[in-house]
Formats: sequence, C-alpha cells, structure tokens
Amino acid sequence: MYSVTVRDHFMIAHSFRGATFGPAQRLHGATYVVDATFRRRALDEDGVVVDIGRAGDQLRTLLSELNFRNLDDESAFAGRNTTTEVLAREIFDRLAAAIRDGRLGASAHGLASLCVTLHESHVAWASYDGEL
Amino acid sequence: MYSVTVRDHFMIAHSFRGATFGPAQRLHGATYVVDATFRRRALDEDGVVVDIGRAGDQLRTLLSELNFRNLDDESAFAGRNTTTEVLAREIFDRLAAAIRDGRLGASAHGLASLCVTLHESHVAWASYDGEL
Amino acid sequence: MYSVTVRDHFMIAHSFRGATFGPAQRLHGATYVVDATFRRRALDEDGVVVDIGRAGDQLRTLLSELNFRNLDDESAFAGRNTTTEVLAREIFDRLAAAIRDGRLGASAHGLASLCVTLHESHVAWASYDGEL
Amino acid sequence: MYSVTVRDHFMIAHSFRGATFGPAQRLHGATYVVDATFRRRALDEDGVVVDIGRAGDQLRTLLSELNFRNLDDESAFAGRNTTTEVLAREIFDRLAAAIRDGRLGASAHGLASLCVTLHESHVAWASYDGEL
Amino acid sequence: MYSVTVRDHFMIAHSFRGATFGPAQRLHGATYVVDATFRRRALDEDGVVVDIGRAGDQLRTLLSELNFRNLDDESAFAGRNTTTEVLAREIFDRLAAAIRDGRLGASAHGLASLCVTLHESHVAWASYDGEL
Amino acid sequence: MYSVTVRDHFMIAHSFRGATFGPAQRLHGATYVVDATFRRRALDEDGVVVDIGRAGDQLRTLLSELNFRNLDDESAFAGRNTTTEVLAREIFDRLAAAIRDGRLGASAHGLASLCVTLHESHVAWASYDGEL
Repeated sequence: MYSVTVRDHFMIAHSFRGATFGPAQRLHGATYVVDATFRRRALDEDGVVVDIGRAGDQLRTLLSELNFRNLDDESAFAGRNTTTEVLAREIFDRLAAAIRDGRLGASAHGLASLCVTLHESHVAWASYDGEL
Repeated sequence: MYSVTVRDHFMIAHSFRGATFGPAQRLHGATYVVDATFRRRALDEDGVVVDIGRAGDQLRTLLSELNFRNLDDESAFAGRNTTTEVLAREIFDRLAAAIRDGRLGASAHGLASLCVTLHESHVAWASYDGEL
Repeated sequence: MYSVTVRDHFMIAHSFRGATFGPAQRLHGATYVVDATFRRRALDEDGVVVDIGRAGDQLRTLLSELNFRNLDDESAFAGRNTTTEVLAREIFDRLAAAIRDGRLGASAHGLASLCVTLHESHVAWASYDGEL
Repeated sequence: MYSVTVRDHFMIAHSFRGATFGPAQRLHGATYVVDATFRRRALDEDGVVVDIGRAGDQLRTLLSELNFRNLDDESAFAGRNTTTEVLAREIFDRLAAAIRDGRLGASAHGLASLCVTLHESHVAWASYDGEL
Repeated sequence: MYSVTVRDHFMIAHSFRGATFGPAQRLHGATYVVDATFRRRALDEDGVVVDIGRAGDQLRTLLSELNFRNLDDESAFAGRNTTTEVLAREIFDRLAAAIRDGRLGASAHGLASLCVTLHESHVAWASYDGEL
Repeated sequence: MYSVTVRDHFMIAHSFRGATFGPAQRLHGATYVVDATFRRRALDEDGVVVDIGRAGDQLRTLLSELNFRNLDDESAFAGRNTTTEVLAREIFDRLAAAIRDGRLGASAHGLASLCVTLHESHVAWASYDGEL
C-alpha cells in the first residue's frame, strides 16, 4: 500500500460539556496541526498517490472554514463536543466529500483510504482512519 | 477507526546478553519517550476514545514503576533482555491490564486495540501493537 | 554559559483588536508549547543550572493560571492584545518573580538570564529573552 | 505485532515529466529523511525484531547508492518519474531483497512486513508498506 | 529581547567544487526547511515583533525565487559554492532588503536583528545571524 | 555570525549524589541526543563554517568514548555528578581540544565559538556555550 501525507494547521476556541472534561469545560482553545494521509494500492499514471499540490490546497481550504473560529458558535457542531476525535472525523468526512466531488482530480477516485490526525500538543494527538 | 495517543517518558539503566548486542552488552542506559495509542471503532458518550486525563495519569503511574531504575535488578525481567521491543510489550501488557481492571474508567472497556511505541533516540524506535 | 530548558504547554481562547490581525480578530484559540530556558555562568554545588524538578513544577503551576481560559476575560491582560510575544513576556515576568521569591530554591538566585519561547504551531513561535 | 524503525537520509537531484508537476518539472532536488519499519509477529531468540545495527548499516549502504546523485541519470529509473512514492517503493524493494539474501542475518527471514517512509519536508511525506 | 520565527521550505539541485566536498561534488540536491527569526527590543503598537502574516508571505515570495531550481545555473551564485551557510546568508540579505524596502510594513523598520536557519536534514543545519 | 550544527547521540548509565536528585540518586540511564554548533564570523575558502563531514566524524568519535558505558565507573567523572550540564561541558571541552589539535582541519582554527546541547528527553535539554 502506498501513502502520501500533507500537514497544515488551524486555531480555534471551544468548550466541552461533561464532568469528564474538568477545567476544559471552560471556554479555551487549541492549535491543531493536521496530517492528512491518502492511501492507494497502485500509483496513478503520473506515479503518485494523489496530486500533492491539490491535496494540500484542498486541506487548506477545508481548514480555513474552521480556522480562527469559536466552534461553540458553529452550527455544524451544535449539540456535540468538538473533541479532537470528533474534529478528526469531521475533517475526514469533508476531505472524503472533496475526493468524491472530484476536487482532488479524477485520479483521486482511485484512493483506497484516508487518515486524518490532529496534534493538539507535543504530547497528545487523535486520528480518524477509514475506507473511501 | 478512531485513535488517541498520549506521550510520556522514563529513564533506565540495563545491559544485554548475546554477541549480537556488541558494546550494548556493557551496563548503559536509555531515555524512552513512550507513545500509547488507544483505538476504538465508535466514540463513547462523551465523544472521546478514552478519558485522556486518566490515560495520561495511568501511563505516568506505570512508567514510574520503571523510571530511574536498573532493569538488570528488576525481577519482572529476570532472564530476559530488556530490549526496546520487550519493554514496549511489557508496557502494553501493563496498560492492557489497567484497562481491564477499570483504571481508565468503564468506557475504556470499549477500546479495540492498543499500540505502545518507545523512542530510544531521534533515529530508532520500536512498538508493540495488539488487540485488547 | 550553561543553560537548562524545560518544556510544557497550555491551551487558551482569545481574540485580537486591530486590522493587522485580519481573521484573528475573531474569537479563536491556541495551544502554546512553552520552552523555559534558564542560564547561569557557573554551575551550583549540585552541578546543575537549576533544580530541574522545581523548575518544571513551577512552570506547570504558572501555566495552570492561564490554561483552559479565555484570555479576553483575564484582568491581567485588560486593554492588551495577548499576542504570542506578549504572552512570552508575561510568562517570563512571572517566572522571574518566582525565581526572586525563592520558589526555585536558594541556588536559583545565581541564574543570569531567562528565555521563554511559545510555539503556536509547527511553523511559528515567539520568545522573550532577558537578564534576571 | 512488533516493529522496529531506523532513520537515515539521502540527498538527490531530479526533475519530473507531466503538467501535473508544474514548476517541479524543472531540475531541482530533495533531502529525503527515510524511516524503515521492520515488523514481525514474535521476537527472535535475542528478543528483537531485527538486529538494529545490521538494519541501520544495510539502510545506509542502500541509500549510499542513491545519495549525492542526479536521479535523471540513473538507469534504474529510466522512463519513470522519481516521485517520493516511487522512491519509497524502490527502497522497499532493495531492502526486501537484502532481507531475502540474508544481509540482515538469518533471523530476519522471520520478518512479516516492511514499511519505508520518505519525508521530503516538514509538511509532506510518502510511504510504501508491504508484506515480505 | 523579543523574537518571532516563521518556518517554510524550498527544494533545489546544486553541486560543489573542491575536494573537501567529496561525493557532494556531483550534482545532487536538498530540501531546506527555513526558519526566519525577527528580533526587536520593544514591541510595536499592535503588540508584535513583526506582522507575522506579511513576514511569512515575504519569506515564501523570496524562497519561490530559489525553489525548484538548479542553483548551478543561477547567476546570483556564479563562481560560488551554494553551501547551506552561503544560502542562509543570501536569504538573510534578501529578507533584510525586503525589510528596508518596507515590504514587511513600516513598523518593521524597528527590527533589531535577523537570523536565518536552513535545516538540510534531521541531523544538520546552518544559520546566518546579523544586525539589521 | 555564521553557524553549523551536527546532531548525534549516546546512551549511558549513571546515578547522582545529593537529596536534590530524589529518585535519580538510584542507578538509571539516559539517551542524550547531542547538537554541536560551530560558529565563525566569516566563511572559510570553501564557503563553509567547518568541514561538516569531519565535524560529524569527530563528534561521533568523542561520543563513542562515552557511549554504552556506566559513567559512575569512568575516572573522568570521579567525584562529580554527571548531570546533563556537566556532560555538555565535558563534550564541549573535548571538542574544543579536537579543534585546537587540528582534528577538524586547519581552517577550523578560525572558529569563534561552540555550543553543545544535550537533549535528555522530549521535554528537557541542557547546553554549554563558550568562546574557542
């Protein structure tokens, strides 16, 4: 299996509901350094997994919809805790939709799976990994 | 599949038996930077893979049982080379036992698998990855 | 010159005033990975720059006063933009006060200078470096 | 599953053919930081996945055949774009051949799989992962 | 002293003249991960060292003039070895000119010094640090 | 001022004397990732700060004299705590002697200063920085 990963980041405010979260129930924030890993069984005609320029641009576009925002005010997350895990899944879903819609090029329809990892600090990170 | 990783470290002395190990047969030591990755298929009611606070505390507790010790004197490793691979498996087993015993909370019984990685330097690391 | 550095982190929400800041004028947030570097010309009687355990504990205590907060609501920053640079200086000042008050031990009075660096992402960081 | 990873690097010049590659069609170059991950189900008699000294030496030997070269002039890559993905696969194949030939020792015949990752910058990397 | 650093990268081909360089006399290449550190004694009216958005954009613009090129063909380096040190100085000079010309804003005239670091691998990097 | 840095590592056992060190009074160990930074005001005739090949080889040679050892048994450290700071200074002194003795080449006599940093984990490191 081949894979290609691109890295970018976004910065948000949010708060959590539930005693489990302790002081993180207060309004606070995070920088998320995001790794998007694209996988396919055989390379395309150009000898790549995905057009890395388009993949990076698309990731940046998707992250800009979340960047510099208070996620507590975003309707997309109404009634949900925007934990690192939930955000990894959300970005996975948006990137998977972009692939299906052809925004990463026709060749990207040959991708097999995708993994999105969000690093919230130097000592903690979370991922969502799934088939496409 | 969702995952969450927490990072910590411990510092030990040890020596190896066997010509394969060359100068590492002498008493020496290592800092191990440890990544514990917890995985589950669906998030729990709080929207997380595991209570990251409890996961980090439990990892620290387990590592403190090894930290600042000469592993050649630890009965847990009698007759075994404490290679990075063996230590990754040992910490995996201890963390798996903590999960089974409920020390990471009831929700942690829903975890599917665990991976423990020990970085011994900027150019070498080892892991043990298994089902729970 | 000798130095010792310890690393920790904190997570906050805030917003900026001024057209310079563009979309960062909206309420958002950040994870700051903090490096505190202590320097002295000669080592103390124990052969160290500073008691690294006390230095790490003190840094953690100071950061816990900012962690999981919305800095727009903190009186300490009233009327000021809490840029990475301003926060680096604030943590420098609080750590310098801790050193003067003896919270890092008597030997820490021999420290010559201090540098506080805040990493806001994998591609941007800021520091304040000054005499003690 | 156990794994061990060793890291090294090599520096090459090359160019790409195809409009997809934009300015990378010009002669340019890259540093590739290479991670080779060896996996096996059970440890060998020494308690290791592979003799890490031999694994590192063999990786260095293989990379030296590519290091400080213009890949456009290498017959091994005639008619192919030497993308990061293609190079990851090439190094995988050469390392797999070294394992089969016994260059990592007899015990290495017990290895189950191998993953080769090439980091081309702090924000992009590619891998080839396969059975042995 | 305050500082702010931004990170970016570029990828080039080149060769060196002189027996000192051994196999690096052949045409090869490198990825350079570039850190540009801007310093000033007091913050400007916005509470920053430099407008980090403009600093990052300017760094990207300057690096794009070198990116995806064979430096052996660039007249700017005719008759010189484009060692990591020489490139760090060249980028320093171009960034210093951009500051003088007002391309980082009027406030940037208050900058005291600049350091440019080029990482050529995970085990080697070089810098040029100077007054402005 | 120009600088060049090379990175390597070594792995040792040791123990500390003094209540300040708490559990680190027990025999334990560490991996030290070492950065050696060489500085000079003007580049030499080859356009470099130092022959990076010779610098890296010399660093490796010096570290091999400490690698895979119990420092409590080394006469060089008799009666001293081998703290990270003390070790940084020791490696500084040995590297400075190598420079004076011409082991880094004649051009290395033009070096102005040297900094040796030892990373003992992902959250702690120490340096000694001095004139040559």
